[in-house]
Amino acid sequence: MSINELRKDYIIDRWVVIAPQRKKRPLEVVERRPEERGHLVCPFCPGNEHLTPPASLVYILNTNGTVKRERDTDEDRHKNWIVRCFPNLYPAFTPGESGVIPGLEGGLRYVRSWALGHHEVLVESPNHDEHPGVARVSQLIHVINALKDRVSFFMTRNYVKYVSIFRNHGASAGASLSHAHMQIIAMPVTPKVVSEELAASKKYYEDNNGCIFCNIIGEERRGERLIHENDNFIVFAPWASINPFEFWIFPKRHQSLILGLKEGEVKSFAETLRLSLGGLRSLFNDPPYNLGFHMAPAEYYHWHVEVYPALSIWAGFEKSTGMYINVVPPEEAAKLLREELASERGRIAY
Amino acid sequence: MSINELRKDYIIDRWVVIAPQRKKRPLEVVERRPEERGHLVCPFCPGNEHLTPPASLVYILNTNGTVKRERDTDEDRHKNWIVRCFPNLYPAFTPGESGVIPGLEGGLRYVRSWALGHHEVLVESPNHDEHPGVARVSQLIHVINALKDRVSFFMTRNYVKYVSIFRNHGASAGASLSHAHMQIIAMPVTPKVVSEELAASKKYYEDNNGCIFCNIIGEERRGERLIHENDNFIVFAPWASINPFEFWIFPKRHQSLILGLKEGEVKSFAETLRLSLGGLRSLFNDPPYNLGFHMAPAEYYHWHVEVYPALSIWAGFEKSTGMYINVVPPEEAAKLLREELASERGRIAY
Repeated sequence: MSINELRKDYIIDRWVVIAPQRKKRPLEVVERRPEERGHLVCPFCPGNEHLTPPASLVYILNTNGTVKRERDTDEDRHKNWIVRCFPNLYPAFTPGESGVIPGLEGGLRYVRSWALGHHEVLVESPNHDEHPGVARVSQLIHVINALKDRVSFFMTRNYVKYVSIFRNHGASAGASLSHAHMQIIAMPVTPKVVSEELAASKKYYEDNNGCIFCNIIGEERRGERLIHENDNFIVFAPWASINPFEFWIFPKRHQSLILGLKEGEVKSFAETLRLSLGGLRSLFNDPPYNLGFHMAPAEYYHWHVEVYPALSIWAGFEKSTGMYINVVPPEEAAKLLREELASERGRIAY
Repeated sequence: MSINELRKDYIIDRWVVIAPQRKKRPLEVVERRPEERGHLVCPFCPGNEHLTPPASLVYILNTNGTVKRERDTDEDRHKNWIVRCFPNLYPAFTPGESGVIPGLEGGLRYVRSWALGHHEVLVESPNHDEHPGVARVSQLIHVINALKDRVSFFMTRNYVKYVSIFRNHGASAGASLSHAHMQIIAMPVTPKVVSEELAASKKYYEDNNGCIFCNIIGEERRGERLIHENDNFIVFAPWASINPFEFWIFPKRHQSLILGLKEGEVKSFAETLRLSLGGLRSLFNDPPYNLGFHMAPAEYYHWHVEVYPALSIWAGFEKSTGMYINVVPPEEAAKLLREELASERGRIAY
């Protein structure tokens, strides 16, 4: 019996056991998991705009190929949109009045605040199934630009401390509607994982006068965890992956927010999303996954996307300890993804 | 539209949005989840002891009602056990040679160690379905005593820093075998969540010369999040519950480890487990759940059990931020559980 390896994340105090032997354990309790599309009318499909709140942003294609940015009014919902953002009907965070900054109340142990902020849906395409793993690159460029527009708006609200962008793919990864969409949450606190990354990268910056993520990118480019690289982006399986086949996508140029993405970088990011999520899809027959953006307005931070394939379950050990067991070494995951992405290139539509 | 509430954990820097409105959102992607028992022979049932490694501990009932502690040899597997512990066939952690203390190696960002430790299974009953929510209290007393025995053994190994006890109930909560069992992991690092609790409770102890958990127990005893209380234990829904219907079980007497449990407390703990897990079971028709023990050999720490019903999914937001959205306010969860536990009392067998 070989001894497993225990690895610590690059910068935060999070540990994972890399335990490939556990892959072989038998499963006696079987859960059949057929996913079926329900009989609800899809509220995100064109023609059903009245089923959602008025759009805070729609992109409409001009005849000359440029994009017009519009927003709905209560009376008038735009049609013919190619990307559409609107408040989530069941929001976790809701806007505050301008000028209101939520304070912390309660004593030592009972701290609370109002959940002021925004919770929006970004419908990624009028085509129900145009998820990033199969989408046209031209469509993903619109998605990224719309994300930039919304993040730019949210970050100027005085009650917003952090903006989270995430997507859930597949019912077992928490998607409640199957039409291709992301969610954006703007909130009054900086969440735990990002706070920890910020503290560690700030310390590194002060000690070394450089970005720790730039340094990590430099190392991973040369190594066995590299999955893909183009002019502007790099994809690799992180050293202490807590999920099987987890990968991270970084811009190679140092930048703290997606807001600074240049036109060529937007296209390069769109290609990278399509290729990496398409490769994951091809490798495992469209598996469920979650992804989240990490970004923060700090010179020492480096924005990136983390993709978590939902191929295993976080159970009692993970939930009670904040420590993880991963049965697929990231080096092995990277090899399979690297090979799959090489063939995926030929399947990309622009 | 009401504004949701944002709450911070009692002591660690973890936030949750209490968002009851989100309960009402429609689910279009439907996942049917029939759970069926597979056709594997159950390796944990009596008679199949040869399918597992030799037991590190078995309890055998003497004719006078006392318990005999034995261990298997490679040649001889005990039969007629009432509780049985053995190494997990697919361990995350494996024993090191005595004297070997795993060092940290790697540079700044590539820290690793060997996963030295133990990973054991504790079969809670010879009866396949005698889970704690339905078990006889007398059986649960054996389970708790066996946990004490094993924890006591693991904590004296010099390569062990922390011992985690957890259980997974139901396939969607990560149980791979349905026979009633817990797992014990002894490991060379203190995991993230417990490290954070230790740091916070140490600080409180130094500043106030008291235990922060004792203080919390005192407050929750009087409040609307109280679920159950007996002479020695208390059950309540925590202030910043990150899971719907989450509850925590604390011994009322200050103690850092389960090792100090007295005979009367063991019985009281067995009743509390049976009642609270049985109440959860009755309330939701045997839902999946995970539970984990938190304990540490530090005078300022107070051991407890955290129970996480698996009624919702941690998705992109939770995984990427370490922040949570809970659609059931803990006060509401406590009320329903409190009422259910009151009727559950009559169903307990001893």
